[in-house]
Amino acid sequence: MPFMPRVLLLGATGETGSSILDGLLESNKYEVEILVRASSVGKKAVMDIQDRGVKVRVADLTASEDELALVLSGIDILVSAIAAQDQAAQKNLMRAAKMAGIQRVIPCAYATIAPPQGVMLFRDEKEEVYNEIKRLALPYTIIDVGFWHQLSFPRVPSGRADYAVLLQDSTTIHGDGEAPNILSDLRDVGRYVARIIADDRTLNRHVYGWSDILTETEIFGIVEELSGEVIEREYISSQQLEADLKRASAEHAKNLEDPAKRLGFYILQTLYSKYVRRDNQPSYAKYLGYLDARELYPDFVPISFRDFFAEVLAAEAKRPYAHLTVPKTLEH
Amino acid sequence: MPFMPRVLLLGATGETGSSILDGLLESNKYEVEILVRASSVGKKAVMDIQDRGVKVRVADLTASEDELALVLSGIDILVSAIAAQDQAAQKNLMRAAKMAGIQRVIPCAYATIAPPQGVMLFRDEKEEVYNEIKRLALPYTIIDVGFWHQLSFPRVPSGRADYAVLLQDSTTIHGDGEAPNILSDLRDVGRYVARIIADDRTLNRHVYGWSDILTETEIFGIVEELSGEVIEREYISSQQLEADLKRASAEHAKNLEDPAKRLGFYILQTLYSKYVRRDNQPSYAKYLGYLDARELYPDFVPISFRDFFAEVLAAEAKRPYAHLTVPKTLEH
Repeated sequence: MPFMPRVLLLGATGETGSSILDGLLESNKYEVEILVRASSVGKKAVMDIQDRGVKVRVADLTASEDELALVLSGIDILVSAIAAQDQAAQKNLMRAAKMAGIQRVIPCAYATIAPPQGVMLFRDEKEEVYNEIKRLALPYTIIDVGFWHQLSFPRVPSGRADYAVLLQDSTTIHGDGEAPNILSDLRDVGRYVARIIADDRTLNRHVYGWSDILTETEIFGIVEELSGEVIEREYISSQQLEADLKRASAEHAKNLEDPAKRLGFYILQTLYSKYVRRDNQPSYAKYLGYLDARELYPDFVPISFRDFFAEVLAAEAKRPYAHLTVPKTLEH
Repeated sequence: MPFMPRVLLLGATGETGSSILDGLLESNKYEVEILVRASSVGKKAVMDIQDRGVKVRVADLTASEDELALVLSGIDILVSAIAAQDQAAQKNLMRAAKMAGIQRVIPCAYATIAPPQGVMLFRDEKEEVYNEIKRLALPYTIIDVGFWHQLSFPRVPSGRADYAVLLQDSTTIHGDGEAPNILSDLRDVGRYVARIIADDRTLNRHVYGWSDILTETEIFGIVEELSGEVIEREYISSQQLEADLKRASAEHAKNLEDPAKRLGFYILQTLYSKYVRRDNQPSYAKYLGYLDARELYPDFVPISFRDFFAEVLAAEAKRPYAHLTVPKTLEH
C-alpha cells in the first residue's frame, strides 16, 4: 500500500471545511482526521463525520503549545479552515505545528485575491498568521479560490432562485459591472486542496483555484440566458461604495468588538476590493506571485458557473450557511 | 544606439547608494539620474556626482504626490537607497511612481535575509513600503545582499586592520559561531543592482546577491590564516544576546523617538536574527521565495571575503561610514 500522508483538518463542519473534508476523502490519497474543540465532541455534525470513518482529535486552541504539539503528533499535513473571526487563534497552533514537526501547514485562506495589508481587514488578519508561519520557517501553502458561485448570482423575477440566495440584494451591479472576478464552486475548494497539499511545486507558495473569470455583466447575462428571465438591475457607483466603506470603517472603529459592525465592514471592504480596486483577478494574482492551479492540474475539471446556475434553476442547489438567518439589509 | 532605460537613484551619496551609482554607471546600460532634496543641491557630494555627467532632479519626499509624479516624469526605473531611518517616506514616492507610470521600482532593501514581520523593526519598516507597492500593483524588485564584508571582520592584535573597522568589539563570537551568513562586498551591491533591475526574471520577485556563505568561525579562520595572527576571541552566548535584546527592546519602547536607542535596538535585533535565529542564510532565503542572483548570473564574479580581507591587510580598504564617529560600546 502506498504511503498515505496523515492530514488533520480544523473546521471540518464549516462551509469551506466540509468541502475540504469531502475533497480529501474522495481523493483516497490521505489518512484524514479532524480536530474539534472539547465542547463540539458530542455534536451531530461531528458524529456524522465520525460515522464516515474519520478519526477525531480534541483540543482547544487556547491550550499550551506543548499540549497542542502532543495532539498534533503523527500528523503530516495540517489544514485549517477555521472560522473567519478566529484567524488569530491559528498562531498558537502554528507554533505547536513547528514543535510537532508538521511537514506542511495550510493556514485558513480560501478567499479572494487581495493585497496583504491595508485593503481588507479579513485579509490582514490572515497575513498575521502567514507571517507567524514565516517567522517559524514552517513549510506552508496558501490556497485561495476567489469568490464562490454560491454567493455570486442574482435572484430572478420568478423567485425560483431565491431558495439558494444568501443575501437578498443580489441584483446589484457594482460600479460599471466590468470588473473581472475569479470564481470557484464551493464544492471544488476541497478538490483543489486535495491536489495542492501534497504537490512539491506548491510548497511555500500561494496558489489559486478557479473555474471562471467573470464580470457581473457576464454573470447577469448567463443567468438571463439560462432562466429566460430579465433581471431588474440595481446600481451602486464606485463613489457610493467608497462612501459606504468609509462609513462602515468609522462604525467599526467605534465598535471594534461588535460582530455585526465587523461583518458589515468586512463585506464592504470585499466589495470595494473586488469591484473598485479589481483585485480578484488573474493578473493581480500573478503579480502577487500566485501559481494558477489550472496550469498545475490541466486535467482538473472544475464546476463552471454556468453548470452551477443550471443546478440552481433545477432546484438542486444548496444555500450556503443554511442554518443562518441573514438580515435583509446586508450586502453580500 | 540601443534603448537605455532611464534610472533615477535616490540616496546616491550614501554607502549603498554610492555603490549603486557606480554599478549603474559602469554597466553602461542606463541613463542615470539622481534625486536629491533641495537642501542637498549645493553639497560637495552631489556636485561630485554631477561632475560625472549625472543629471540631478530635485524634490522633497514630503511634497504632494502630484508634484513628485511630475519630478518622476520620463523615468523608467526608480531605485531607492534611502537612509535607514527614512523608510516610511518612500510610501509617498511609490504612490507618485504609480501616477508617473514608472515601469519598475526598487525600494530600499539591500539587507540581510529576515522574516517580513516581528523579528527586525528595520525589516518591518521596509515591509510597510513593500505592502504599499503591492496595494498599488506597482512592478517591483526587492534586492537583498546579506551583510557586508566591510562590517564582518575582526580586528587583529597588531592593529593593522583597525583603520577599516567600524565598531571596536569586532572580535566577539556570537553563540556557537556556527551560524552560516550570506555576505557581499559593498562594492558588489551596485553591480548586482545593475544586472537585476532590467531582467524580466526578477520582476515582482525578491533576489539576493552574495559572494560567500560563512560562519564567524570560518571568518576568524580566514583572517588568522591571511594575517598570520591569532585573534583573542570574546564570546557572547545566545542566552545573553536574547537578554540584551529584551533590554534594548524595553529601552526603545520607552524612548521611541531616541535615535541612539533605536540604533541599539536595530543592531541587537540584527545580531539575534543572524546568529540565534540564523535567518541570513540561503535555505531561509529560498523558503521566503528569493531568487539567487548567482544562479541568474553565473558569469558574475563577486569580490570574495578572502580577497576583501587581503585588501584590508594591504591597507587598501576603506572604512564604511568614514565620516561617522562611532561609540565604542555599540556592537555592530
